[in-house]
This record gives sequence, structure tokens and C-alpha cells, in this order.
Amino acid sequence: MRVGVLGAKGKVGATIVAGVDAAEDLRFTVGVDAGDALTAFTDSDTDVVVDFTHPDVVMDNLKFLIDSGVHAVVGTTGFTDERLAQVRTWLADRSDVAVLIAPNFAIGAVLSMQFAKQAARFFESVEVIELHHPQKADAPSGTAVRTARLIAEARKGLPPNPDATSTGLDGARGADVDGIPVHSVRVAGLVAHQEILFGTQGETLTIRHDSMDRTSFVPGVLLAVRHVHERPGLTVGIEPLLDL
Amino acid sequence: MRVGVLGAKGKVGATIVAGVDAAEDLRFTVGVDAGDALTAFTDSDTDVVVDFTHPDVVMDNLKFLIDSGVHAVVGTTGFTDERLAQVRTWLADRSDVAVLIAPNFAIGAVLSMQFAKQAARFFESVEVIELHHPQKADAPSGTAVRTARLIAEARKGLPPNPDATSTGLDGARGADVDGIPVHSVRVAGLVAHQEILFGTQGETLTIRHDSMDRTSFVPGVLLAVRHVHERPGLTVGIEPLLDL
Amino acid sequence: MRVGVLGAKGKVGATIVAGVDAAEDLRFTVGVDAGDALTAFTDSDTDVVVDFTHPDVVMDNLKFLIDSGVHAVVGTTGFTDERLAQVRTWLADRSDVAVLIAPNFAIGAVLSMQFAKQAARFFESVEVIELHHPQKADAPSGTAVRTARLIAEARKGLPPNPDATSTGLDGARGADVDGIPVHSVRVAGLVAHQEILFGTQGETLTIRHDSMDRTSFVPGVLLAVRHVHERPGLTVGIEPLLDL
Amino acid sequence: MRVGVLGAKGKVGATIVAGVDAAEDLRFTVGVDAGDALTAFTDSDTDVVVDFTHPDVVMDNLKFLIDSGVHAVVGTTGFTDERLAQVRTWLADRSDVAVLIAPNFAIGAVLSMQFAKQAARFFESVEVIELHHPQKADAPSGTAVRTARLIAEARKGLPPNPDATSTGLDGARGADVDGIPVHSVRVAGLVAHQEILFGTQGETLTIRHDSMDRTSFVPGVLLAVRHVHERPGLTVGIEPLLDL
Repeated sequence: MRVGVLGAKGKVGATIVAGVDAAEDLRFTVGVDAGDALTAFTDSDTDVVVDFTHPDVVMDNLKFLIDSGVHAVVGTTGFTDERLAQVRTWLADRSDVAVLIAPNFAIGAVLSMQFAKQAARFFESVEVIELHHPQKADAPSGTAVRTARLIAEARKGLPPNPDATSTGLDGARGADVDGIPVHSVRVAGLVAHQEILFGTQGETLTIRHDSMDRTSFVPGVLLAVRHVHERPGLTVGIEPLLDL
Repeated sequence: MRVGVLGAKGKVGATIVAGVDAAEDLRFTVGVDAGDALTAFTDSDTDVVVDFTHPDVVMDNLKFLIDSGVHAVVGTTGFTDERLAQVRTWLADRSDVAVLIAPNFAIGAVLSMQFAKQAARFFESVEVIELHHPQKADAPSGTAVRTARLIAEARKGLPPNPDATSTGLDGARGADVDGIPVHSVRVAGLVAHQEILFGTQGETLTIRHDSMDRTSFVPGVLLAVRHVHERPGLTVGIEPLLDL
Repeated sequence: MRVGVLGAKGKVGATIVAGVDAAEDLRFTVGVDAGDALTAFTDSDTDVVVDFTHPDVVMDNLKFLIDSGVHAVVGTTGFTDERLAQVRTWLADRSDVAVLIAPNFAIGAVLSMQFAKQAARFFESVEVIELHHPQKADAPSGTAVRTARLIAEARKGLPPNPDATSTGLDGARGADVDGIPVHSVRVAGLVAHQEILFGTQGETLTIRHDSMDRTSFVPGVLLAVRHVHERPGLTVGIEPLLDL
Repeated sequence: MRVGVLGAKGKVGATIVAGVDAAEDLRFTVGVDAGDALTAFTDSDTDVVVDFTHPDVVMDNLKFLIDSGVHAVVGTTGFTDERLAQVRTWLADRSDVAVLIAPNFAIGAVLSMQFAKQAARFFESVEVIELHHPQKADAPSGTAVRTARLIAEARKGLPPNPDATSTGLDGARGADVDGIPVHSVRVAGLVAHQEILFGTQGETLTIRHDSMDRTSFVPGVLLAVRHVHERPGLTVGIEPLLDL
């Protein structure tokens, strides 16, 4: 499989080029950055292009790739419902082309959320603890809020977490996200970590995800590169590739 | 739902009676122990009977319950393929009756294994660490061996765990179960715990199950009691009830 | 060493009797409960008496034991400064007798706090996470508050935890105990657990204590029984026995 | 305090320069690399020099610094007993100069070992689990072997870990280091981690150290820089600075 990269000289792009180079079954064709012609991809018979660029240019990139019959794996942010609808319209005319757009390529994070949804109904209690470096501005993290909401959704109709707390200090029991307590820990030396703790009589189940560095998106991007062609049209998120 | 218990005076049976009593949607009818007549169940209009007895008597119990149109949830051990076939034959004549036989009712343990199977293909590395009290005779635990085999099965065709170990001490890298390293920790104060650790570039995913006491089978038994009637015929394991 | 137990028929007392019986170097002499004569201890040549009784009777017990030259290990609660002063007065006349009174005999809990104090000055950040069963009424736990205060005391004069949180939900960052964030998790299946998380550039240190059942005070009581005679007079807490 | 760096252009040296620059109470004076004159330190009134260079040059560096009355903090490897004796001889003539040589500046690692030694006598069981990236050549890690030996030393005279294992697979119970089981986990995505697990009746105590990246030596180097002058003569290891 022949793979090109858009934004190849950026930090993320360079990491993806290195990941493609290291994969025996993938072949890096060409990197394209601001100012380069997109035709470099068609000239080099590229099968799939990875786009981690900028919301300002990603739509033009996609128009070109779809028109040229090149599959795309996109990590660029800023995809509103309107943008997704536009991409679908373009793809309607090219039933042979596949585009995958995902907000998160870290497989461990995506699986964590899937497992949390599956487990949610079978335990009396569930809480989320997320732990990050102290430079982080938001608490809880966006991932923790999304995780708690997915769990709350899956538990609809079930009784709330039991909790006999009657005296205490403000904040001890965490933030309340749709009824699920979420605790945010900020400690120097940490990177990005999340623990989902389920419990019922006599047992607990913990799902923990640790991101140790900023390259944890690479395996998910390569997974998408390998399988995107199996799903013509638009796919949002890498979950459909995981066959859960 | 009206629930009876076979072996009600045993330690496990008594725990189940307490669990049924504590559940608002279930009603305990009658307990039957060695020497008592099984007709106590039919006399009391029992819908479901839970059997945690002994391999010597469980087949007679099942024959009676199936013939009487009473559903059964069975945690008694010793079910060979022959025994399961026999139960299926009995059930063939009673299409309204449901029997569920499971080797493990701890929901956390069952979900751990399911999640491990689902995650297995998406990570470069996986190892299993099981931790138990030091009175345990076998190492690794049966659950850890089963978990490692399920993972190995799911990874068929993928490269083995990377491992550059070239010098070391015997045993440091654990036991090899179908290519998956399994480590057995025995420490006073522990009960029964298992951690499945997956990793790929820049991230790890950990699935941990902690059994804190010997009542962790109760929620799974009650789940089976509530849903067994939805699955006439024989069901093996509680996995089908979890809708994964 | 010959060991007697006050309150021997209570749950805690019976556990201590069992612990003494199981220890090869200790010999159980006699148990005394409400209505029994304290002279049973002197009649049986008891060296050390363990008292887990009630604030209403413990002072009378101690008066008798000190006057009779019997060492005492006391887990009964309710010791005010006045009571401790009274015990010291009694002991002033009996320089051969030793009394140890401790609020917590769980060695793991005591060591956790000691280590936390020692580590506190060497890390930029520290937070406390305590996890308990959902029947607990107070949040944070008394132990977590005490731990946070000891840490805050040891960090006097150092800069506070770095924390760039600028947007968030109420409670996400936990309770503030003298500047140390404390998070209280309440999940079914848990017993009593506490994690102290320290971090600085590139590394973290975690001290975790897990109480799995209500017998975790036994090893600390036996340690005190074995060593109390080495410290004539009054000792408060088991820390001095740990030679840290 | 005015701080110079030997080997300032190397990876480690550059990280230390950055650490000194970021510390408000320290002032970076000058970096010296192969080919530069050591007099740059005296010319710039440097108080303390940090040396992370090479065994081939470190002794010459130290001779110069000691003769010039400049304190030294040394992370360079290869210090045999003979070399340490030589440094002591040089220092005998300069009672105003302090040299600190340490094999490990990661404060979390050093504290882990100290706490392990302190806790070792109070628990029935102890095991060590070390977890690293799969490119590591040795199993167990050097740190894990050293930790296990320290624990074994502290437990001399006590009964061995209880262990009823009678059937099992080779390697399941880990490597035996002076009677302490050590387990080595190798998983992609990990960096360098170690867990020391102690247990006794009803409770466990876990000391865990996580190294997230290769800059975790910086806080320990800065600690040594700040306090080395308080200890004229030779100090080996950063433990004496920790006042444990």
C-alpha cells in the first residue's frame, strides 16, 4: 500500500512519516506541505493520504483527493456537521473512494470508552479518575467528560451509584457529570491517564489508559491507513474498524 | 420472580439466599438441602432454582427441574461434554424450560476476558499478571491460563510480543502460555486479582479485576436468575446474557 | 510471652485471640469480658494484656494492669489529653510497666503516612486519592485528612502544587486540605484503600495502602505485644516501634 | 549559586543546563565540552560543576575542580572503590571542597528503595514487579535486583515469604533474588516502572515508581547542586541529602 502524508514537515506529520517508514507492509510515497502541489500524490500513485493539517485547508485537500480517487485518513480538527455533510456529498459521486475522519486515533482511549459502555449496566457503582500534567487548563478533561456521558447514557433506567456520604468537604466527591463522579488529578511528571472504576458486591473492574507520549496516535493512524479502503464513503471515528 | 435455592444451608447457598432476599424484584420461596424433597419447589410455585450443590447430585436435580418446568441456574462444577449433551436431550422435550450452567459468575472476571479478546489484535504487546493469597496451590491460576489462551487465539497470525531480553535470571519473564507471558504473584493479604496489560507505541491499556471476597459471584447469579427464562434450552456461561 | 485479652468475646477481641493462638512465640492465657474479674490476668501470670473494649471501662482496666505490673496494648478509642496525662501519672510510680495506646494498628497505614511525610519535600506535586465502600458517611476519610495535613506540614515553606486549571466543573479538583487536593471515591466492592501520588519532572512515586478486610489490625497488635516491654512508660502510636 | 556543566552539549548535559536555567535560585555560568579549557569554570566564579561526561575524563575533571576549590556533582559512571579512594585522597587536602557522586539521581527511585528497606521487616510477604519497554536487554532490571537484595538484607532472620505453590508452569513465580520473587514485564509503550508489593494479614502496601521520560534525573541533580556544599568531603549517593 502506497501512503502519502499532508503536512509532512509538521511535528505530527513527521511522526506519521516515520511510522509509515517503519511498517513493512506500507510504502511512503511523498510528503506535501504548504506551497507544494497536491498532484504529487497522483503523480506518485499514492493509495492513501494521511491529513493532519489545518481546518483552513483540509476541505480543499479532501476535494482534491476524492476527485482524484485517493483514499484519505484525516486527523485534522474542526469538522462540523456541515463539513461532514459536504464530504458526504462529494463522496456520493465517487463510490470507490473512502474517507475516514477521527477526533482520536489512540486505540487505547477508544477501546476504553467502548469497554466502559459495555460494562456500564453490570455494576452498581462507577467513577472516573483522570490524571494529567499540571499545565492542563481544563478539569475534567474532555475525554473524561465524554466517557462519563457515554456511561450515563448506557445506565439510563438503572439506579444511581449508591453513596451514603453525609458529611464532608466540598469537592471531595468530585465533579458530577450526568450523575457519574469524575475526579481530576494534576501532578507533575504525569502525561495523560484515565481510570474507569466499576464495582459491585465483592469485586471491582478497572479499565485504565495511559498515554506516555505524544506519538500514541500512530498505531491508530496506521490501522486506519490499512483498512480505510474496505469502507467506501465516509467513516467517522476509528471504532468501526475495531470490529467490537 | 419466585426463586428457590438448592444447597441453601451451605456457605454459597446461604449467600445466594441473602442476595435474593435483598433484591426487590425477586422473592425467595424455599431452600432445599440433602434429605429434603425436590417437590418443595413445585409446591411453592418457584420459577427459577439456583443450584450450587455437588457433581454427584446435580444431574438428578436438573432432571427433576426440567421435567417440572422450572428454570435452573447452575454453578455446580463437573460438567463434561457428556453431561451437557444429556441436559440438552432432556431439554429437547421441554422447549419452555431454560437452563444456564456457568463455571464463573463473577461479572468482572467474565467481562475482563471478553475485553481482553476484543483488544488483543490492536496492541503489539500483552502480558498477564495474576495476584493471589499465598495459600493458592497452582501458579498460574486457571483464570490466567484461560485468559492467556483466549488472547493468543485472538492474535493468531500477528507477530509475537517484541522482546529484546538477552540476559537475565530464570523465571524473570514469567511463564509462557501460548506465547503470552503470565506472572503469578503470591502475597499475604491479597484475595484474587488479575491485570491484563496491553501496549503499543506511546500508550498502554490495562484491564484489572479485583475479587475482594468470596461473595463476588452473587451479582452474576442474580443476573442469570432474572434473564434465564429469555433463553429456553441450554446456555453455557453468562457471556450471552451480557449482550456484548 | 504470655498474652491475655480484654473484651475477648467481642468481634475484635476474638480476632486477636486467634492471632495470638496462631503465633508460635506467643501464648494465650485468658480472656476477660464484662463481669469477669481482672485478677484472672495476675492469676495466670500474664505478661501483656490487649484491650479493645470501651471508653467507659478502659481507664479502670489500665489502673488495675499498671498497679499489677502487667504491660498493656490498647486499641480502645476515646483517649483525650487528660486521659493520657492520667495514665502517665499512674505509670510514674511503676517504672517497670509499659503501656502502648494507638489509634491505628494497621502497619501499612502507619508506614504510608510516615513515607508520605519523608517524601513530601522532594516532589513538586502531591495529591491524595482515597477509595472506600459506598456505605461510608464521611468524605474525605479521617485517614486521608490526617495524611494530607502531615504532608502539608512537611512542605511548609515550599511552593504550592503547580496547577494551571482555569476552566472546569465544581469538585473536579477534589477537596482542599491545607493546600493538598484530596479525592474521595465511593464504589461498591471496595473496602478501604488510599493512594498518595507524588510527582516531579519525568517521574512519579505512588504509595498505596489496601485494607482488604477488618483483620488488618492484627499484625500491628502482635508487633506491639512483642515489643511493648522494651519501652517502659507510655507510648502513643505504633510508629516508635517501627524504628523508621 | 553559580552552576557550570561539564559535557554541556551532550543530551544529558543540555537537559541539565535547561534545568538550571529554569530554577530561580540557580544561575548557569558556563558549559565545557571536549576541547574546552576547564579554567572556564574558575574564570566565571562557578560554585558547583555538574559532570555527566565519560569514565575516561572524569578523574581529570575532578582533580582540577578539587584543586580549584569548586564543588562537584557527578553522574558519570565507572567509579570503582579505587577511584573513590583516589577522590578521597585529593579531598583530604581541601577540606573546604565537597564532591557528590551518585549512580542514580531519580529521587523517586532512591526513595522507593529506602522505603522498601524500612517496610521490609513488617510484612509476611514481598515481591517486586518491574515493567519496561521491550527493547531492554536485561531481565530483571539492575534496579529491581538491587531493590530485592536490600529487602532480603533487611529481612535477615525472618521467615521466608509464605508460598503454597505446588503445581505450576516454569517461570510463573518469577526470578528468585535472595529469596525475593522478581517479575519482569516487557510491554511496548512502557518506559521504566517498578512496583514493590508488601502484604500481611488483611492489608497490602505498594510502593510504585514510574519514570515517564529520560529527564527524571534533573530534580535530583538540582537537589544535589543546592546542598552539596553542606557536606565537605566525598558523599556517595543522594540518600544522605534526603534526611530520611
